[in-house]
Amino acid sequence: MISRVLSAELAEHAGKRVTIAGWVHRRRQLKSVSFLVVRDRSGLAQAVTAHDLPPEESVVEVTGTVAVSPQAPGGYELVSPEVEVLAEPCVAPPFDLYRPVVGASLPTVLDHAPVALRHPLLRAPLEISAASVAGFRETLDRLGFTETHTPKIVGSATESGANVFGIDYFGRPAYLAQSPQFYKQALVGVFERVYEVGPVFRAEPHDTVRHLAQYTSLDAELGFIRDHRDVMAVLREAVAGMLESVRLRAVSALDLLGVVPPTVPDEIPAIHFTEAQRLTSSSEPDLSPAQERWLSEWAEREHGSEFLFVTGYPMSKRPFYTHPDPARPGYSNGFDLLFRGLELVTGGQRLHRYEDYVRALDGQTEAYEGYLQAFRYGMPPHGGFALGLERWTARLTGAANIRQITAFPRDLHRLSP
Amino acid sequence: MISRVLSAELAEHAGKRVTIAGWVHRRRQLKSVSFLVVRDRSGLAQAVTAHDLPPEESVVEVTGTVAVSPQAPGGYELVSPEVEVLAEPCVAPPFDLYRPVVGASLPTVLDHAPVALRHPLLRAPLEISAASVAGFRETLDRLGFTETHTPKIVGSATESGANVFGIDYFGRPAYLAQSPQFYKQALVGVFERVYEVGPVFRAEPHDTVRHLAQYTSLDAELGFIRDHRDVMAVLREAVAGMLESVRLRAVSALDLLGVVPPTVPDEIPAIHFTEAQRLTSSSEPDLSPAQERWLSEWAEREHGSEFLFVTGYPMSKRPFYTHPDPARPGYSNGFDLLFRGLELVTGGQRLHRYEDYVRALDGQTEAYEGYLQAFRYGMPPHGGFALGLERWTARLTGAANIRQITAFPRDLHRLSP
Repeated sequence: MISRVLSAELAEHAGKRVTIAGWVHRRRQLKSVSFLVVRDRSGLAQAVTAHDLPPEESVVEVTGTVAVSPQAPGGYELVSPEVEVLAEPCVAPPFDLYRPVVGASLPTVLDHAPVALRHPLLRAPLEISAASVAGFRETLDRLGFTETHTPKIVGSATESGANVFGIDYFGRPAYLAQSPQFYKQALVGVFERVYEVGPVFRAEPHDTVRHLAQYTSLDAELGFIRDHRDVMAVLREAVAGMLESVRLRAVSALDLLGVVPPTVPDEIPAIHFTEAQRLTSSSEPDLSPAQERWLSEWAEREHGSEFLFVTGYPMSKRPFYTHPDPARPGYSNGFDLLFRGLELVTGGQRLHRYEDYVRALDGQTEAYEGYLQAFRYGMPPHGGFALGLERWTARLTGAANIRQITAFPRDLHRLSP
Repeated sequence: MISRVLSAELAEHAGKRVTIAGWVHRRRQLKSVSFLVVRDRSGLAQAVTAHDLPPEESVVEVTGTVAVSPQAPGGYELVSPEVEVLAEPCVAPPFDLYRPVVGASLPTVLDHAPVALRHPLLRAPLEISAASVAGFRETLDRLGFTETHTPKIVGSATESGANVFGIDYFGRPAYLAQSPQFYKQALVGVFERVYEVGPVFRAEPHDTVRHLAQYTSLDAELGFIRDHRDVMAVLREAVAGMLESVRLRAVSALDLLGVVPPTVPDEIPAIHFTEAQRLTSSSEPDLSPAQERWLSEWAEREHGSEFLFVTGYPMSKRPFYTHPDPARPGYSNGFDLLFRGLELVTGGQRLHRYEDYVRALDGQTEAYEGYLQAFRYGMPPHGGFALGLERWTARLTGAANIRQITAFPRDLHRLSP
């Protein structure tokens, strides 16, 4: 490896001659002195020289003596530097990466993602995203879950016929999986508790700020539950673990974005769907985005919580594998978790008896045989949830458009880079 | 949650009345006494009763008093049990899950994966796989890598025109990504060090024991390297971390399969491709499977290592983004890692200058513009590797066919379950 120290480590080497390596984040050539700001994965470091400097985004190694400098990033800078250029850019970035704000429109950013994401403000949400996933896994590992990797190519568009991408699979029609739903349920029969972090695909024909054609789904499923409330308890732990991990692992990203992660109450407030209807004076069988926003504000006002569970959605609005509420026919043991005005997670208890599936499908089980197999062989009461990683990161960082926090988004119009 | 203890925890509750929950793994009804073996995620537990017992794969809660029993799994059993059946199977499994060996052919196992994988011998490799991935991430997290999630739908079949699956992307042609190669390279420009664990897709037209149409690729890429040897050093750490994690997290799976994880030498032996040719008396520009096996045996004999690096493959046999060996034109800074006779990992140093890409592509850069963009803006010397998770698990567990250790394999013929 190139022998180097990271810019964040300069203080530990005060008075010594060290080498740093990174990109020229900014050069400022004044009359008698030049400032070179180098960006590496740990942050920024400044070098002071009298020489000419290579242009921004040049890849450099800079060897110099570490000196105290209250104005420099981190309080130290390199003096008497020698600069070696490892690679030079062919063109200037489409906007200045060193400016504190991103001086480009979203389409420009997305068209130039490989270089645009180097801007600290655009990179930071991806660090928060990575830290969130680490916390999700850590929590579920601790709770005895097993990680799985399931097929993304499936033989039938079962979960919902609409919005699937078709594939030519060795001359046969196949589809991209919209979720690992069926597989994670089957694997409850093997491991009791499973999770998967992976891509899911939706041929979403609408151009909205919160939908992508591919997103990363954090899926979990667990057996031997009493009902959906046990799933909600695990989800609460997962979300708390994600935020804890972000606080630990993405300190500088949070600082840079000015984001304060929310606190998760020990018990997230939960209201029944009928109560949500009453509060929003609605009689519709589903909640509109406006009603979700209103309910989130209500939860913050009434319960001091940025999270709110809505439980018991009408069966008519939930997928066929949803377990009904034994006490209230027509309502389900399904829930949504709202976070800052948006549905972040959908989950619930599932049917676990084969005959209940046959009934739920009105006997039309043909397309589902592969799926239903697991239930022929004895399955425990179980349930689970799916959390969209990009939606989570967007809400957490306050991004208005989900594309702002997705490295290389895929949508109706965008297929590259 | 159903209030229960796990079967592995019985010893901690000796003399007490506890509830366990799981599947009826086996029932044995003798004249005056019946044995019920319950399987849960932690293992097996036995209950002794005089009553009739539900059939195998019934989901049960069993409440009984924990008593010492040298013949029982774990040395304890439940006496005076009450058995509650939570769900009953509709049909018997296609083969007996309680028998110590799997009494079914591979096609039967795969056709019935949701129930077949409950067999402890078929489940164990998946636990080893999960533990391996955890160790991979742990190691790279420690080394300052950032986890990424990149597009699986791409606009052009760039890396290799052959063997890609075509998709209908909102009426436009698109393809399933064969690897995150281009994205992970671009993200070196953002994070310096990145990894991804995710599905990759190959429309592999051959029906072999070591190829799948979808597999899980453990990809890593890092910048600021001197050459491919720095990549090899990181790979060595990753493999050692995977094995360490397997030893820690998959103890009972290793025991059950009788697998002893290999030791990774502090420095994995490495030979140049020309030396490999000499040793195998070959003049071909690539190694055949038989030669890979011979070289692995040679490494074990000569160096006591089940791992062997072969470096410097001819440029003609490596992808266009491969960095040549500056000292030996025609040979590359690319490597393979052989493990127990099989190529497990491919990696190397990549080109990092835009003009080198233009030259490598003979100026035919049109299809690659999205890819090449990153290199226009200054990229450090970098390299990386990709390790196939299923291949790894198959080698580690001694599985002859990669399908044996894949939960729901996809191949030329198989698209369900």
